Amino acid sequence: MPTETPQPDFVLVRPQMGENIGAAARAMWNFGLDRMRVVAPRDGWPNPRAVAMASGAGRLLDEAMLVETLPEAVADAHFVLATTARTREMTKPVYAPERAMQLAAAKIAEGQRVAVLFGPERAGLENADVARANAIVSVPVNPAFPSLNLAQCVLLLGYEWRRAAGEVAPERMQMDGSDWAAQADVEALAQHYEARMEEAGFFFPAHKAESMRRTLRNFWSRMPLTQADARLLHGILRQMVRWKDRGG
Amino acid sequence: MPTETPQPDFVLVRPQMGENIGAAARAMWNFGLDRMRVVAPRDGWPNPRAVAMASGAGRLLDEAMLVETLPEAVADAHFVLATTARTREMTKPVYAPERAMQLAAAKIAEGQRVAVLFGPERAGLENADVARANAIVSVPVNPAFPSLNLAQCVLLLGYEWRRAAGEVAPERMQMDGSDWAAQADVEALAQHYEARMEEAGFFFPAHKAESMRRTLRNFWSRMPLTQADARLLHGILRQMVRWKDRGG
Repeated sequence: MPTETPQPDFVLVRPQMGENIGAAARAMWNFGLDRMRVVAPRDGWPNPRAVAMASGAGRLLDEAMLVETLPEAVADAHFVLATTARTREMTKPVYAPERAMQLAAAKIAEGQRVAVLFGPERAGLENADVARANAIVSVPVNPAFPSLNLAQCVLLLGYEWRRAAGEVAPERMQMDGSDWAAQADVEALAQHYEARMEEAGFFFPAHKAESMRRTLRNFWSRMPLTQADARLLHGILRQMVRWKDRGG
Repeated sequence: MPTETPQPDFVLVRPQMGENIGAAARAMWNFGLDRMRVVAPRDGWPNPRAVAMASGAGRLLDEAMLVETLPEAVADAHFVLATTARTREMTKPVYAPERAMQLAAAKIAEGQRVAVLFGPERAGLENADVARANAIVSVPVNPAFPSLNLAQCVLLLGYEWRRAAGEVAPERMQMDGSDWAAQADVEALAQHYEARMEEAGFFFPAHKAESMRRTLRNFWSRMPLTQADARLLHGILRQMVRWKDRGG
């Protein structure tokens, strides 16, 4: 059975190559989507090439809803989005993938069912298919080279679904096990370097010494130091002093 | 020559299959990126399978910078991002693709060069490669099925670059050539229907008539009508009256 996770249904309309159906299943599952519907696949169903290509996502094909016509595929949908590359002579809102999946997430949160239509590889959705959709999703490709394949289109919509579902933190800090250095750690490090550099005659000439000290202090404050970094830098300085003391 | 469009350099580090290099070139050019760098490709360079797969994006391969080591590939970069799936024992900021490309766009606007590293297909970037990067980009895949191929990873970063470069309008209305209906058009339509429905005895029983009229008015206001829609709806109503007059 598909997962219980609220999600849109991805509807492959008259897909042609089995490999592309399999790759689309993989791309869906890469982003946690597992409700596929397939309308009148050219080479019948089940499709062994689709199964071979889907590998770890084969379950989506086993559980896919297979129907003969688009109206059957979207009968229970409250909001239908059609992915298209070409402009159509049809009055209809056109959303970028991000906005489309944000809308889908809002509608799904209200209990509506949302379907996203993907056309056959060669020609895409027909106008009669697009006329059944409430809105168009257009992937913002380079107009000089707009060729996206079926699985790539599914991948981008799946990615935007996952973002819209709020499962993506924009940034975090990965740590190696050490904690961040506290101000006292940074202060101790700054003093250690300042003292040794003073001994070493680094702050020269005298009229530049104050500015050099300020530059060094600012450097320590600007670095995002961990406690492990601080220990490493103390160690480097101590080793330099030992080396000097050996008269190396 | 690559285009003059400001953009990051996409660096393929020790890529293996020629097909994947070609597919990566296509994915880059789908989103208007054309500065590829290739570090120590396993099967030599140029690679006929890469060329065959790249088809319309073959120019990127011809113009790619080919180097033997990662330091050469990023020598002129001010900011280096490493795409990785696995967590590393390394203190480093981790950005989602959107945030990473927003940062890249800000830095590029300041005149910095930004490089984005993509690892070999099988194992991804080595820790020694990641240690050279200023930050990590992590694609938010389903933890139960995180397998993205090289070209898919390039595709998602290229897509986010194009969004960050501000070239994507979140939504627009595609028109079929007709203009939107003005309030006067909607008013005329509402009055036409109200008058005929009055004649037809639609507003019955009397105590519900006012609420029925209000519902009908609200319906017209809620519809995003074009002038062509209004003409169509006037025509439907006139035809119904003619049909009735014929005594059909």
